[in-house]
Amino acid sequence: MPIQTPVMRLLGIEQPILLAPMGMVSGGALAAAVSHAGGLGILGGGYGDGAWLTRECDAAGNAPIGIGFITWSLAKQPQLLDQALERAPRCIFLSFGDLRPFAPKVAAAGIPLIAQVQSVAQAREAVDHGASIIVAQGSEAGGHGAGRSTLPLVPAVVDALGDVPVVAAGGIADGRGLAAALMLGAQAVLCGSLFYASTEALAHPNAKKTLTAASGDHTLRSSVFDIARGYDWPQPWNMRTLDNDFSRRWADDTDGLKASITSESARFAAARDAGDFTTAVVIAGEAADLIREIRPAAQIVADMVAEAEALLAKPPYYQR
Amino acid sequence: MPIQTPVMRLLGIEQPILLAPMGMVSGGALAAAVSHAGGLGILGGGYGDGAWLTRECDAAGNAPIGIGFITWSLAKQPQLLDQALERAPRCIFLSFGDLRPFAPKVAAAGIPLIAQVQSVAQAREAVDHGASIIVAQGSEAGGHGAGRSTLPLVPAVVDALGDVPVVAAGGIADGRGLAAALMLGAQAVLCGSLFYASTEALAHPNAKKTLTAASGDHTLRSSVFDIARGYDWPQPWNMRTLDNDFSRRWADDTDGLKASITSESARFAAARDAGDFTTAVVIAGEAADLIREIRPAAQIVADMVAEAEALLAKPPYYQR
Repeated sequence: MPIQTPVMRLLGIEQPILLAPMGMVSGGALAAAVSHAGGLGILGGGYGDGAWLTRECDAAGNAPIGIGFITWSLAKQPQLLDQALERAPRCIFLSFGDLRPFAPKVAAAGIPLIAQVQSVAQAREAVDHGASIIVAQGSEAGGHGAGRSTLPLVPAVVDALGDVPVVAAGGIADGRGLAAALMLGAQAVLCGSLFYASTEALAHPNAKKTLTAASGDHTLRSSVFDIARGYDWPQPWNMRTLDNDFSRRWADDTDGLKASITSESARFAAARDAGDFTTAVVIAGEAADLIREIRPAAQIVADMVAEAEALLAKPPYYQR
Repeated sequence: MPIQTPVMRLLGIEQPILLAPMGMVSGGALAAAVSHAGGLGILGGGYGDGAWLTRECDAAGNAPIGIGFITWSLAKQPQLLDQALERAPRCIFLSFGDLRPFAPKVAAAGIPLIAQVQSVAQAREAVDHGASIIVAQGSEAGGHGAGRSTLPLVPAVVDALGDVPVVAAGGIADGRGLAAALMLGAQAVLCGSLFYASTEALAHPNAKKTLTAASGDHTLRSSVFDIARGYDWPQPWNMRTLDNDFSRRWADDTDGLKASITSESARFAAARDAGDFTTAVVIAGEAADLIREIRPAAQIVADMVAEAEALLAKPPYYQR
């Protein structure tokens, strides 16, 4: 494999590509497919649901995968970490909250604790609190995140952390993004939206189709869909999604949405069940322009690596 | 020169680095220094001031430079374009507004019209309206801009435009950023904040010093400083700056700022004159972490190119 980084050795993977643990979307089949393709599949444990976790760990079979949680939500049901560790995952991946209650158990299990952060200050704190790998996530990412952008955030985090490996996340969906991330000092990339549009993702077929037709010009970072879904996210995080009729109606009037929440959340849920994504949410980021078809995860990994390797072998516009 | 791109030939430059036309900060000395170093210096004509333009064109001497304007403001005093064209600039650079009133004159002058845009849709429109080079500017950029991020925006614009050259802007302040931009398909980079901290920039010494000590974690995109300065910017653009006491006081209460504008704008102006940047504004972006010293522009260009060439010659973590 032409690309070899320390974090790949640490995680035991052959390709520098991690599946973002998209809550309830990165299930066992997708995680297993990414790992079998040489990357690292990470289950999207999300807000935490023991039955879902059992089912999707079973679905992954004996593929070497990681398990991810939303940190502030895991704090409400910490037994899920024990349930996850019983499965001997390749890593635990925590985003959005205080690592300290969980880091000792992960360390005792002898596996890496990956922390996803959105600023240089959070990166330093995560390492102080026990993370061994940092995912520096830019605001262009789909799903929850915060304000900084990937291109300047990644080298700043690399410079701040010394030897701690940094993985780039946010806006990366092809080999150009992977090659760029390596230039910035990242040792791997973490991709969400790209795999949301995979055959194996547990997203509605209409949602995947909507994503492949979308432009990154039409996304927004807001709390509007969290309100509709009844999730009370702490500051500073909110969620990037494609825009649609629902976000256009409410994004600038979240007080109005809250005042109409009973009927609006019912309308939202009905649209989701019906696969109507003019109202229901497609959780994807600014890389949407680069995601044009639904492919099997193994193909996605192979295509990204091949494109990046070609760029690194012969950098564009560069003559030795 | 190991890096050779079509846009460099088009602009007649030896290094793939353009100076952002920072209004009233990118003056003649700085523009000339960047051009003499092999890049392209572009004067920051900003809102438009005929006397300033004359003085700074004179200061640039016979260096081959471009001239930039804020498009919506140029529309109020279009004679400034004639004044600029009389100086036989290397290019005209327009940002933030409708190109159509100006494109024919620039075309008649036989020089490239560079348009800075913030979305794929704006990029397509700018080419339709006569731009021959597109600067795709991410939200992480200092100064005025909009919502999309550089890393996913650049390849999306490249894919949308075919043969029209694309320059990357926003968050780029070292050779890692330049190398990454080339991987994304850009043919050059445009840097603002990096040159704000140059010896030659027409920024207050205290502002430069504040920037070199700052982190990109502490910037914001807002209208607060435009309100304080009395500029009425149209949607969708606002301005990224370092945060400070003034922005922390007013960013979430622009109605309150407007209600106190007489005293607050006086306080702001006094702080600016006194070089007090706890109140006055440092217009810089998220690349702040990467900008650690004040250097001559020629050194900045040479350092960035040397670092990028080393990365391209031997990509990190890559074995042929």
